[in-house]
Amino acid sequence: MYKYSFCNDYSEGAHPRLLEVLAETNGVQEDGYGNDRICGQARELLHRELKSPESEIHFVSGGTQANLIVLSSMLRPYESVIAVDSGHINVHETGAIEATGHKVSVVPGRDGKLVPQEVRNLVAEHGDEHMVRPGAVYISQSTELGTVYTKAELEELSKVCRELGLLLHLDGARLGCALTCEGADMTLADIARLTDAFYVGGTKNGALLGEAIVINNLKLKPFFRYHIKQRGGLLAKGRVLGSQFAGLFEDGLYFDLARHANDMAAALAGGLHEIGATFMTPPVTNQIFPVLPNSVVKELSRLYNFYVWEKSGQDRSVIRLVTSWATPMDAVEMFLEDVRRLSK
Amino acid sequence: MYKYSFCNDYSEGAHPRLLEVLAETNGVQEDGYGNDRICGQARELLHRELKSPESEIHFVSGGTQANLIVLSSMLRPYESVIAVDSGHINVHETGAIEATGHKVSVVPGRDGKLVPQEVRNLVAEHGDEHMVRPGAVYISQSTELGTVYTKAELEELSKVCRELGLLLHLDGARLGCALTCEGADMTLADIARLTDAFYVGGTKNGALLGEAIVINNLKLKPFFRYHIKQRGGLLAKGRVLGSQFAGLFEDGLYFDLARHANDMAAALAGGLHEIGATFMTPPVTNQIFPVLPNSVVKELSRLYNFYVWEKSGQDRSVIRLVTSWATPMDAVEMFLEDVRRLSK
Amino acid sequence: MYKYSFCNDYSEGAHPRLLEVLAETNGVQEDGYGNDRICGQARELLHRELKSPESEIHFVSGGTQANLIVLSSMLRPYESVIAVDSGHINVHETGAIEATGHKVSVVPGRDGKLVPQEVRNLVAEHGDEHMVRPGAVYISQSTELGTVYTKAELEELSKVCRELGLLLHLDGARLGCALTCEGADMTLADIARLTDAFYVGGTKNGALLGEAIVINNLKLKPFFRYHIKQRGGLLAKGRVLGSQFAGLFEDGLYFDLARHANDMAAALAGGLHEIGATFMTPPVTNQIFPVLPNSVVKELSRLYNFYVWEKSGQDRSVIRLVTSWATPMDAVEMFLEDVRRLSK
Amino acid sequence: MYKYSFCNDYSEGAHPRLLEVLAETNGVQEDGYGNDRICGQARELLHRELKSPESEIHFVSGGTQANLIVLSSMLRPYESVIAVDSGHINVHETGAIEATGHKVSVVPGRDGKLVPQEVRNLVAEHGDEHMVRPGAVYISQSTELGTVYTKAELEELSKVCRELGLLLHLDGARLGCALTCEGADMTLADIARLTDAFYVGGTKNGALLGEAIVINNLKLKPFFRYHIKQRGGLLAKGRVLGSQFAGLFEDGLYFDLARHANDMAAALAGGLHEIGATFMTPPVTNQIFPVLPNSVVKELSRLYNFYVWEKSGQDRSVIRLVTSWATPMDAVEMFLEDVRRLSK
Repeated sequence: MYKYSFCNDYSEGAHPRLLEVLAETNGVQEDGYGNDRICGQARELLHRELKSPESEIHFVSGGTQANLIVLSSMLRPYESVIAVDSGHINVHETGAIEATGHKVSVVPGRDGKLVPQEVRNLVAEHGDEHMVRPGAVYISQSTELGTVYTKAELEELSKVCRELGLLLHLDGARLGCALTCEGADMTLADIARLTDAFYVGGTKNGALLGEAIVINNLKLKPFFRYHIKQRGGLLAKGRVLGSQFAGLFEDGLYFDLARHANDMAAALAGGLHEIGATFMTPPVTNQIFPVLPNSVVKELSRLYNFYVWEKSGQDRSVIRLVTSWATPMDAVEMFLEDVRRLSK
Repeated sequence: MYKYSFCNDYSEGAHPRLLEVLAETNGVQEDGYGNDRICGQARELLHRELKSPESEIHFVSGGTQANLIVLSSMLRPYESVIAVDSGHINVHETGAIEATGHKVSVVPGRDGKLVPQEVRNLVAEHGDEHMVRPGAVYISQSTELGTVYTKAELEELSKVCRELGLLLHLDGARLGCALTCEGADMTLADIARLTDAFYVGGTKNGALLGEAIVINNLKLKPFFRYHIKQRGGLLAKGRVLGSQFAGLFEDGLYFDLARHANDMAAALAGGLHEIGATFMTPPVTNQIFPVLPNSVVKELSRLYNFYVWEKSGQDRSVIRLVTSWATPMDAVEMFLEDVRRLSK
Repeated sequence: MYKYSFCNDYSEGAHPRLLEVLAETNGVQEDGYGNDRICGQARELLHRELKSPESEIHFVSGGTQANLIVLSSMLRPYESVIAVDSGHINVHETGAIEATGHKVSVVPGRDGKLVPQEVRNLVAEHGDEHMVRPGAVYISQSTELGTVYTKAELEELSKVCRELGLLLHLDGARLGCALTCEGADMTLADIARLTDAFYVGGTKNGALLGEAIVINNLKLKPFFRYHIKQRGGLLAKGRVLGSQFAGLFEDGLYFDLARHANDMAAALAGGLHEIGATFMTPPVTNQIFPVLPNSVVKELSRLYNFYVWEKSGQDRSVIRLVTSWATPMDAVEMFLEDVRRLSK
Repeated sequence: MYKYSFCNDYSEGAHPRLLEVLAETNGVQEDGYGNDRICGQARELLHRELKSPESEIHFVSGGTQANLIVLSSMLRPYESVIAVDSGHINVHETGAIEATGHKVSVVPGRDGKLVPQEVRNLVAEHGDEHMVRPGAVYISQSTELGTVYTKAELEELSKVCRELGLLLHLDGARLGCALTCEGADMTLADIARLTDAFYVGGTKNGALLGEAIVINNLKLKPFFRYHIKQRGGLLAKGRVLGSQFAGLFEDGLYFDLARHANDMAAALAGGLHEIGATFMTPPVTNQIFPVLPNSVVKELSRLYNFYVWEKSGQDRSVIRLVTSWATPMDAVEMFLEDVRRLSK
């Protein structure tokens, strides 16, 4: 048994308040498939943040599902979606996008982020019917490497996409942490304004399950529920999903939980920095990638659960530490103490 | 506002015990993606019923998802799945099976059930590479028309499938009601023995969400989790699903809830029969299809929520009434009273 | 060895004139992928018939390929195509349409033809996101049962499709015979006006291979070559296809060949009628379906190659006889003589 | 108008002998869909070269079609195919493989060739159900960069594939040139022995159209025709394809034509080398990639048709020159003379 797991941000169940919301409305008869009043209320609460009254909100159960539904609804058969090499859809979704018929056109990322010039280059290289036509762009905020796009960066990407006729989808599995990290300069309303679609991640930010897909581009709205149903994403008891977002957005819980996860990661990063650790990418959200001596990593991995990301030269390794809404400061301190002890 | 909804069996949330199980294990850190101890416990409890130690159990969130994952894992690209015209995959899954590349080869049903001879005929007509090759058979127990296969019928179907080289998948969205209805002569163990795969439906039998896919055919077991992940069905917090089945099978709750739904439907059917109603199909499970005068249906539909299924001649209509684990006897009596009053 | 095969209309190679055209241009260097001058010339000749200057013409090698490319380019992921039960895409294309992700929504045909009311009914039954959305209509002219839509019938179907927002695709594998049969009242220009897309069949009307897809609906034109390429239909030496249509349309050969096939079928039908045969469907094009005594069919099938279509009561069978541009009158007379002899 | 096109190897029609074979058998009635005697004869001739009596041979019309049919028949839904970055399926087939549902897992190539260690690394990195499972390997012989695998290299790749449970498919669009180039040490029999499937390219080696798919792995044989039909690749008049391969293999014409193309490329390469050109990849087959001053390229591109491949530093560019069975020595000499003149 491990002392604690920093393996991911979905090791615990749901924040207790979300179980309460679920229980409060449990007995009432409601319409199915997301047409219930709890989903309605969750949509209303989200709309207050989005400040984009025409955006449509749909709840689904997971991130791979959200991505495959949104992207396959955006693309024509011969179109591809551009993503960075470390993008979740490229690496960790078992070819889910390809299974809907579309190529992921991969470009190198910079600290996990997509650089507009790479989009321009890729589009320039795709000139005729012998190659796929790039039709959409996929980014994650925060990225798979824990980094965050600034508002200026997202505005630039958005501009390039519109100029080149590409639809922009933002994977917000860990959007809460991106919006609340140190130096964050973006709101949900900014994202609604700058993307064609995105999703607000619940699962990795304290919900039992659930992601809220937000469709901003009017052209994508008609028949979107058909896509969800066809891909197996329309839950009969939609209230299960609605209750999570109703609870997360009724009093800012969504942001509080993300802030806590960031704080715990910052405490970890600070402590590691003090003892001389470097980082593969800047530690700004709840995923951090410290570089530690192999000997320390080896001992640590007997005590804690986390991913060893990759080798860094002969003697050191990059590890990934993930904190969550539920990570207690005690676990952070215990971990740092062990690192300090092992590093002597 | 309606007095009560007989529209479906997923209008209410979950049975309270299932919320309790969810809450009990909520705080503990667990592995993700169904590898947690709650899912493990649920599998163990299910295995006791299945008496088929080699069967594999996977939890997913909904029925369309379960069907599309199982069937696309069973079929080669050129193969089709045989189903009756009223089959859920043929009518009410928005072409989910076709979206994975496979034709649904439709044959006429008898009271919603598949007749072995129809399977034989269809296979006999598909002789060369200009036609799809039937590769699997899909049935629902109970069927979309509320009827139930007897054990003898399922054994015959199973035998025909094995003889013809077809894999058999049973959609158990409402399996609980089939196993507990009057005259039921089948167990989960029988189904595990007679099918290649099936699923035990949670959503329509008191769970918040969740269906337990059971893979009995050894050849279908390897890499099944890849199929689930690729189709967006692998929930990060698998415990959400595991807790439902742990609760449903710890003390026979699954069967109790189904029995209650059947009892309420039987009370409805009995009352309607008394006042002279006939039925489109024999009323044996929690979905019944009484035929009532149009004038009665019109008035009733102001008071209650239910589907008007189809016209029956000039003056009468078939309606669908669905009861659930949560339907109170009061609602049944109130409904019957209204019917009696309106029928005078 | 058979005396002659009435099995289909592609038993022989190409009309000699088409081999000549192929050889005449063989040595010259040309651009690839249908951008050559021979394809250009073929398009020009076809446009004279179409009288629809904005229509786009693309050459592919076969009918299944043409259908799957056109229909998958027409449909959104959740949309289906409506076809009659005997439609080629429903029966004899090995699930090619489903392999592109789309359901074929089947309705009963009348002598192989689609009745507008069936389209209306099917659309009316498909009201929400739990069912596919019918997005296109597929018909064949002539049909798989040898029958022909009149101009009035096609105009009515076209009107209904436009009213209901359905795209209309006409499979013209045997279009030549439909345009030149007794009583035919339609031109290629009519078809270009009344459909969103169709194809002019070469393979079954004297070409080595090749079908000319005609896109009439402006919205379907952009990126159509991407669809062709992605499905493996863009031949490097496009001239192979262009030469066939250049030859077929330079002097009306296309119509002459079809007329000959019809004449031979009419001679067969006339002779069979004289000796008392009835027909499953009216014999108007190059596919006829006489009903003959089983004993006669049995003997005939030793001498000639043809399909036995289905039983017709206890004592008789429907057979399919197909004539082609190459069928000699001698073969027809020989066959009739044998039937007369065997029928005594 | 250009003096000559070195743009590709499919600018001309067919070698005259192949048109003759086509014409010789044109009038005879034959079975359809590749079951004719001409296809039978072509298979027999090919089998003599393959020395692999159990291999199955199927004729299709183009290379993209061959690749998508073979690879989609090899892979399970969650499996990917490994290819080098410059691989035809990755770059120039408009996402055809992805359209059948499968990811192309890309690794860096060395001169267009796949290095076994890259295969090992990629497989090692794909360990669980969150990533695709590599199921097949795709290579081209000769490669898209004109280079050739030696027999030792192919044996090593084949060994690694078998060790890792990967199926090996070889794209032989330009196989003739690979088998007949200077230093070639491999036969069709070697390839049949070392791969699970491959295709012998006709289109780029003098045929009108056509590629001969060879299935060596017994497990891939059943139902292969269903795959061909479903993807629109089963030509009704299969003789069109059979006649090409009958002609190509009756007297070694296939090898003669390839040798000629190689000789013309070698003459070009020799002449360019003399005036100081370097090459992006070793010039060994009918595609060569000389590096020339931009000023020379600019002038040349007014006189000849060819691809400018990429920049090479500031002042030079890589161009691609392709020769074919039909390229006359005159064109080669004229081109070299112009280069010499422009290079002064």
